[in-house]
Amino acid sequence: MATKALAQWAVNLTEIPPSARKATLRSLYNYIGCTIGGSNHPTVKKAHAALAPLFGNSTSCLLGSALKTDAQHAALLNGIASHVHDYDDTHLATIIHPTTPVASALLAYAELQGTPLRGEELLTALAAGIEASCKLGLAVWPEHYDIGWHITGTTGVIGAAVGVGKLMHLSESEMMHAIGIAAVNVTGLREMFGSDTKSFHPGQAAANGIVAALLARQGYTSSHQALEAKRGWANVVAGGGAGAAGLDLFVGSLGQSWEIEVNSFKPFPCGIVCHPAIDAAIQSHEELVRRGIDPEAIKEVSLRVHPLVVELTSKRYPRDGLGAKFSVYHGCAVGLLYGKAGPAQYEDAVVTNLEVTGLRDRVNILADASINADEAHLSLVHQHGTLKRHVIHAVGSAEVPMTDEQLETKFLDQVSPILGKSMTAQASDAAWALGDAENVLPLMRHFCRRYIMPEIDLCN
Amino acid sequence: MATKALAQWAVNLTEIPPSARKATLRSLYNYIGCTIGGSNHPTVKKAHAALAPLFGNSTSCLLGSALKTDAQHAALLNGIASHVHDYDDTHLATIIHPTTPVASALLAYAELQGTPLRGEELLTALAAGIEASCKLGLAVWPEHYDIGWHITGTTGVIGAAVGVGKLMHLSESEMMHAIGIAAVNVTGLREMFGSDTKSFHPGQAAANGIVAALLARQGYTSSHQALEAKRGWANVVAGGGAGAAGLDLFVGSLGQSWEIEVNSFKPFPCGIVCHPAIDAAIQSHEELVRRGIDPEAIKEVSLRVHPLVVELTSKRYPRDGLGAKFSVYHGCAVGLLYGKAGPAQYEDAVVTNLEVTGLRDRVNILADASINADEAHLSLVHQHGTLKRHVIHAVGSAEVPMTDEQLETKFLDQVSPILGKSMTAQASDAAWALGDAENVLPLMRHFCRRYIMPEIDLCN
Repeated sequence: MATKALAQWAVNLTEIPPSARKATLRSLYNYIGCTIGGSNHPTVKKAHAALAPLFGNSTSCLLGSALKTDAQHAALLNGIASHVHDYDDTHLATIIHPTTPVASALLAYAELQGTPLRGEELLTALAAGIEASCKLGLAVWPEHYDIGWHITGTTGVIGAAVGVGKLMHLSESEMMHAIGIAAVNVTGLREMFGSDTKSFHPGQAAANGIVAALLARQGYTSSHQALEAKRGWANVVAGGGAGAAGLDLFVGSLGQSWEIEVNSFKPFPCGIVCHPAIDAAIQSHEELVRRGIDPEAIKEVSLRVHPLVVELTSKRYPRDGLGAKFSVYHGCAVGLLYGKAGPAQYEDAVVTNLEVTGLRDRVNILADASINADEAHLSLVHQHGTLKRHVIHAVGSAEVPMTDEQLETKFLDQVSPILGKSMTAQASDAAWALGDAENVLPLMRHFCRRYIMPEIDLCN
Repeated sequence: MATKALAQWAVNLTEIPPSARKATLRSLYNYIGCTIGGSNHPTVKKAHAALAPLFGNSTSCLLGSALKTDAQHAALLNGIASHVHDYDDTHLATIIHPTTPVASALLAYAELQGTPLRGEELLTALAAGIEASCKLGLAVWPEHYDIGWHITGTTGVIGAAVGVGKLMHLSESEMMHAIGIAAVNVTGLREMFGSDTKSFHPGQAAANGIVAALLARQGYTSSHQALEAKRGWANVVAGGGAGAAGLDLFVGSLGQSWEIEVNSFKPFPCGIVCHPAIDAAIQSHEELVRRGIDPEAIKEVSLRVHPLVVELTSKRYPRDGLGAKFSVYHGCAVGLLYGKAGPAQYEDAVVTNLEVTGLRDRVNILADASINADEAHLSLVHQHGTLKRHVIHAVGSAEVPMTDEQLETKFLDQVSPILGKSMTAQASDAAWALGDAENVLPLMRHFCRRYIMPEIDLCN
């Protein structure tokens, strides 16, 4: 019944509660910043160059660039860009990055469709897709992830199909087929973490979601028990056991609890486990500045953190920005020195800067099993005395979500290097305006380096 | 080591033994017949119409049609066409249909590449891809299939990437990355059997194989332990257990035993389990004709068969061609009446023909666990007496492979309704000639309804 229940819920969803709507808009805003911010990453450039011989009509924007391509490849490339810095949103209960596959599919398909699209309808379709992904993720969690699947790709494709299916106004039966066609594309292995292919997963999920919805609209059939059958999606991707026992429960909770409301955003472009320590470092920086103490004069720093911080981010001597993502020492040093730990503080030049490496070497960490995952203790010795900071819940956690202003700072930090300052401000305004727009399509030009007329065909 | 071992073997493969070469050519020949034969199936037409808005430059033939499209969608649509009648080849030990994903990718990519391609190189790439698929299939068999994966899609994508990677002359390291990128696209659920999506699986595998090889050539990275890692392909797709224990063993046997040599072809377009009974019926028809007895005068037919025949193909009253594929009664009736059980004998009109339904009703079957899967006993009563036939190994089985002449008859039966008689003869000649061709590309026109100049761009 899960396939029918999901399709029925999605097809009939016309209004979402204000709190869910607000969370969806914030997720979309964060998505756009991440996608533009990742658009010039070498991973995206390689994929673009590799697949250009396959490109079709230029209907759909590659965010952050001056180019368009067909909806399938635009969804793929935008999906890669949005995830490539590991800076996109996180549904903490499943570690799904839910917006990337769904929004990449929706925006690319909306431009292919070409008819005016109200912001309200876009948000509703996005919420539907995100809820589908997260509820299905919960249903197969944790077996599915433990086996080794990258859950963002494997659930994202179904969310993407549901979202695009809503823009198409599929019937309930067509939506069930779209879910089924999407479900056969199980994309993403955790073995790929650390390689270009990790961000291929959500991109491919987005592209395959569009394909699934297009096929279903044409009457292409799959199965009306695609999710719940013995050899359907949930049982198979949970390893063939009883991993899918929660399917009815979680699908049944659609619309009663909203996963989008507990979606979280990363304030710092690095492993989430070291965020509490970085938060403590930034707060300490602010305190030092208030007291007129130069952060460079710090003699020694001690951190007490959750054991996973040591396990996952204890790279003592990172040599570049990528390595620094796994170094709590680096994150702590830049937080203390600059009061920031944004993309600029993870540039290679900053990672090898002598001030940063000097302070980094004076940071010590201690694992303490009594400390929570979103908690950290920092104490430091400076020339005039000491300072202590206890972060109970790090910024970006469920208890202390990033504020709209913090999301905006993140957006500006990500997008400015790509679009320049003045266009970045316009892009930010346009991204916030998506929710209330009579037609979202004209706003898309603000997310590109310059406006490309839809008529221009780059197909070759 | 399996990823490296497979890549190394594939990259260095320059010559295949004559017996494997012959088997590869026969597989390619059978593939072309199946693809043209399936090209006007409603499933293919729906997919074509649905995805046309995404089509790119027209580089690559849609076999059996007058159209070209980009290589990715051509591979997808040809893959669907080749599998849609369930009439393509079978590697019996794994039930993989090995040629469909690999050949669909190779032909579409060869046309995109556009440079002359020797038949020898095409056969070598095809053999490499088929061996990759089948050895990997053996490594995860039977857990993988039992869980519910459609093994043709899940292994075919890796075979397709290996084959296309060979045409690109990828280095060993690039080939390893291509294998890894392909491996994350695990496509195909058995729940979809009986729907349009079943044949989407090998098509999608072909398309994703091309994408993987293109990305790898551009330096896109995956993992050099993609197949064997704890959270790599084999362990994950075998359900997270020790299902991948055979990986080294089977990859290690590459080039020592050739899976293509035990590839089999279906003489009849229906469930393989009822082939022995149909073979017995056809042999009985020939015997009756020799004796001057009219097959219409048969009073009663008794079949003794393997229990699976009863379990899977005991549809007593099929109403159309699709239903007849699961009716040993129908297969037996047309075999006895016409001495044939080709696509023409599975047309709806034949399934409802009164002679056929009359004889069908006089067929009785008995399951007998002492009978082998490729064996059948038939006895019949006619106006002048009785006749018995014992098929020990059915045609198409490993012991009694279809002869080249039988493959040709199958090809003509499949292709004639699409291309007409005279073009079909040319197509058959061209298909056999692929192996020795200095350049296979000019031969492709014989597999299309009329020749489309490569310059003509249908992109829109």
